[in-house]
Amino acid sequence: MPNELPSIYPLGIVGSGQIARMIHSAAVKLGITPRLMAEDSGDSAALAAPGASFRHPDALASFAELCEVVTFEHERIDLGMLEHMEAGGQIIRPGAKALRAALDKMHQRRFLTHRGYDFAPYADLRGPDDLLDFAKMFGFPAVIKSVRSGGQAERGAWVVDNQNDALRVMAEQADRELFIEQFQPIVKELVVVVARRPGGNARCYPVAEVTNADGACREVRAPAAIGSKVATEAMEKARQIARELDAVGVIAVEFFLTTSGLIVNEVAARPHNAGHHTLENAPTSQFENHVRAILDLPLGPTHALAKASVTVNVIGGYEEVDPADHLHEALAVEGASVHLYGKRPRSGRKLGHVTALGDDMEQARELARRTEAALMNRRFQ
Amino acid sequence: MPNELPSIYPLGIVGSGQIARMIHSAAVKLGITPRLMAEDSGDSAALAAPGASFRHPDALASFAELCEVVTFEHERIDLGMLEHMEAGGQIIRPGAKALRAALDKMHQRRFLTHRGYDFAPYADLRGPDDLLDFAKMFGFPAVIKSVRSGGQAERGAWVVDNQNDALRVMAEQADRELFIEQFQPIVKELVVVVARRPGGNARCYPVAEVTNADGACREVRAPAAIGSKVATEAMEKARQIARELDAVGVIAVEFFLTTSGLIVNEVAARPHNAGHHTLENAPTSQFENHVRAILDLPLGPTHALAKASVTVNVIGGYEEVDPADHLHEALAVEGASVHLYGKRPRSGRKLGHVTALGDDMEQARELARRTEAALMNRRFQ
Repeated sequence: MPNELPSIYPLGIVGSGQIARMIHSAAVKLGITPRLMAEDSGDSAALAAPGASFRHPDALASFAELCEVVTFEHERIDLGMLEHMEAGGQIIRPGAKALRAALDKMHQRRFLTHRGYDFAPYADLRGPDDLLDFAKMFGFPAVIKSVRSGGQAERGAWVVDNQNDALRVMAEQADRELFIEQFQPIVKELVVVVARRPGGNARCYPVAEVTNADGACREVRAPAAIGSKVATEAMEKARQIARELDAVGVIAVEFFLTTSGLIVNEVAARPHNAGHHTLENAPTSQFENHVRAILDLPLGPTHALAKASVTVNVIGGYEEVDPADHLHEALAVEGASVHLYGKRPRSGRKLGHVTALGDDMEQARELARRTEAALMNRRFQ
Repeated sequence: MPNELPSIYPLGIVGSGQIARMIHSAAVKLGITPRLMAEDSGDSAALAAPGASFRHPDALASFAELCEVVTFEHERIDLGMLEHMEAGGQIIRPGAKALRAALDKMHQRRFLTHRGYDFAPYADLRGPDDLLDFAKMFGFPAVIKSVRSGGQAERGAWVVDNQNDALRVMAEQADRELFIEQFQPIVKELVVVVARRPGGNARCYPVAEVTNADGACREVRAPAAIGSKVATEAMEKARQIARELDAVGVIAVEFFLTTSGLIVNEVAARPHNAGHHTLENAPTSQFENHVRAILDLPLGPTHALAKASVTVNVIGGYEEVDPADHLHEALAVEGASVHLYGKRPRSGRKLGHVTALGDDMEQARELARRTEAALMNRRFQ
């Protein structure tokens, strides 16, 4: 006798990109039949998972009705609708409170500053007056940021060196709500991925260190080359923030390690690029622990399996090289793990990632970078 | 701009079960958009992958037309149609020659015996006369086997202790083609999984050791506790057999280690239960190397990551306990990796597997068995 299709799906995943795609895979591994809601049948996630495509504004509510638990890969959500759904008994993960904080970076800052977490000095940026006031107090360089998170896909921060720079960015981003932040003397950018269950039980992955370029995460190294005191502080703060936000599922807390200590940069309410290495480098990946957490199942171990791990993102360039066309050359570079997302190449778009594990960070880095260069048909120096 | 659905899929996967499901996941990881052909939309593979369900006899040919390369998770195939398709230019993996050998165990024996590989003495079993002739020569116990492979799902071997036993099995299996084989004084059952590319480039995974019960694989330990001479011989023979069969993709060669040496038991032309541990225990899983091999991409490393690995199959019992109902208890057993296939419980059906890695085989075994017991709601002794 064949199986029957479930009438109610235990898990609904809302998203079109690689995060949704990898959450889906993790659920499947555990024998869970998730339902996907993407935007288009050709989306990265929809290419890999049986899913429905919706564009209608009411689609989310009718999708959610089919699912016991609904989770999101991004933060481009109508929060009002979400809160309405939650009030009606729908289980939303990581929860409206965490999603609101992830979605609105000013809300995030106010909420967490109020509870004693350090951020760089920040202010609303609604017009030239706000800019002048802020510059008077904190000078340049500064960082202009979008209040609404664009999720993984969109650039949301611009470093500005002077008033003209700032006015140009404000003009270019006139349709977005912006705020401004003091530029920090950043020693390192660190990320802690935390998985947290409804009852509060939580586990952290080791602190990862990221290198950004052009506003996008380029490289992730784990463990971060930091002292154990900073590592403990980062993990402890990440756990606390997850608790403050009543987060259920995986959240990622991005920190700046500055010359004067650790400050919070950003909280993302989803599995994070800096946790992709856990697919190879942990007994339980961030995606599997996300699924476990949101379904209130026991979390799995989060320790690193290798001494050194480097993930390099595969990001589309202006030439629109398609890494899928160079899989052969990349796989010929022995030893790294290649992940491609099935996306069309476009400049700045995350098309995949490569993770190399090893005993030595520089060796792992060379292997990951060599593999990424092969995918992008670039000579490796 | 959204992606478009491909007009031709690079990879078509024919199958309804966990092997198809896991091949699909491996392809997705590499950014490949496979097309699945299952039997029913509620099948294990179809629950996890966007797929088409077909029952019409012509369905395979029209499915194959949409795919550059077609692969199979099982051997329940119309070989004539396959050879016709291959003759027409369709790329079939692992290829009609390998599939014919996997499908027809008498053909497999004749083909490989002729080329110098040792099997247990065997004979056709078309009626009582064949039985008497065989018994006169080799006595009892003997093993009656089905000529046609049932793939992973069906029992295909029965040990018989005397003539009455044998006649009973023959009567019960009257609708199947059977053969009889001398019972072997088996010291160990070993399996070598080989991935082979079209040009002949091949890689072996370490030799695994399996324990069967009730005609089904219960436990897989890797590496097998055998001397390096036997291990080398098994891997060398498996490679040679893959070459003899012009196999492209993953094939598995099952051996019996008897008191008088290594003999071939069976060749399966697909990823194998004894290779499931490679999902956690190798840099490249057997599923990913299968995908790489059939698409003629460079193979990945196959060495073991852990000193000891134990996989325990989760097999349905008479009580029809559903392991999905006990995921909570199983995941609470810290450290093993749980895979469930989304299948309805039924006695004798493979519903999932659990792999535990470690430094010590007995520790890994206890962990895997404890987790499996939790899934089946059984007290663990």
